[in-house]
Amino acid sequence: MAWDSRGSRDVDYSSRYLEELVDLLALLPTIGRKTAQRLAFHLLKTDEAEALGLALAIQRIRKDVGVCETCGNIAETQPCYLCRDPKRERTVLCVVEQPGDVVAVEKSGAYRGQYHVLRGALSPLDGVGPEDLRIEALYLRLDEEPIEEIILATNPTAQGEATAHYLHQGLSARGLRITRIARGVPVGADLELSDQVTLARALEGRKEMD
Amino acid sequence: MAWDSRGSRDVDYSSRYLEELVDLLALLPTIGRKTAQRLAFHLLKTDEAEALGLALAIQRIRKDVGVCETCGNIAETQPCYLCRDPKRERTVLCVVEQPGDVVAVEKSGAYRGQYHVLRGALSPLDGVGPEDLRIEALYLRLDEEPIEEIILATNPTAQGEATAHYLHQGLSARGLRITRIARGVPVGADLELSDQVTLARALEGRKEMD
Repeated sequence: MAWDSRGSRDVDYSSRYLEELVDLLALLPTIGRKTAQRLAFHLLKTDEAEALGLALAIQRIRKDVGVCETCGNIAETQPCYLCRDPKRERTVLCVVEQPGDVVAVEKSGAYRGQYHVLRGALSPLDGVGPEDLRIEALYLRLDEEPIEEIILATNPTAQGEATAHYLHQGLSARGLRITRIARGVPVGADLELSDQVTLARALEGRKEMD
Repeated sequence: MAWDSRGSRDVDYSSRYLEELVDLLALLPTIGRKTAQRLAFHLLKTDEAEALGLALAIQRIRKDVGVCETCGNIAETQPCYLCRDPKRERTVLCVVEQPGDVVAVEKSGAYRGQYHVLRGALSPLDGVGPEDLRIEALYLRLDEEPIEEIILATNPTAQGEATAHYLHQGLSARGLRITRIARGVPVGADLELSDQVTLARALEGRKEMD
């Protein structure tokens, strides 16, 4: 027997709702269609509380989560959870590009001060200038908060370095300590496999051993 | 300066709702915590319609999607979309283990008949016997539908083969054509890398070239 080979996708699934879920999951980054299908079957089979909890969590971040007016981070309260924490040091401010960078710094466990999220980096070619970043808000904070040191933790990319230099110039008259995160060979990496720019930075940034 | 290194995860995110979403996404198969975070940030930034559409799609498959009483496949109507399709052949029935197998056969484009989903395979060691599968429902269908051929498309695993043999015995008195999907070397595979059981099956199942 032989059936015509069909290119159409409209009868792949016996349920249109399932098909719709697979389509939407496949729109997510890093999720291909095969994984989307696997996730959809999982969501169909797993605990009802887990599946509906995920749906509710997605609705909540879209409805109840906004931007902290103080630091520019993702927040469901004003100011955000990190800005309100009385246990955090108030004299140090870490400037990063994106909310995800705050997560990375927090996970390092090496920082307990304040944050300021620029929501981007200077990129003249993409039309991103200082007015598109939360730089004015940063200057306003410095007028009001007892900040003594600013750690420029923008990415070690062309845009991140340009942003750090721009901020360094703008802040230099304020009598603050201004530092830049160290750039060097990643912990656990192989010197032989490090790119030359990183290695040059690692040599420039060398320290006395104690 | 030095802050204490902390092991706690409770301040990773500035929003508890975001944290909750990452936690729930990380429960999904194939999704690690890093990917979960990337997906959560995507769901926060992307079109509201896309994010809320995904939430709704999850709710729908849990609330409005059930099992087709005819074929055992996933369905939001009774009978399901595939069973109701008047363009599909009614004399051939393909027996598979799981709803995902229906998707795989449909995607092959090589089949346009009916399906029967067993919802598992015989596995005495796991306590799965014939009464745990939709075998009785299969026999009832054969009494009512004009089926002439049954294609046993259970997996080529120990459990799938055992299930196919069990069904073959149970069905042999009914005067139907009973076939088993071919097992052999996958298209595009390298003979050298094929396991010996598959290669033995491919030799046993050899056909005259035309």
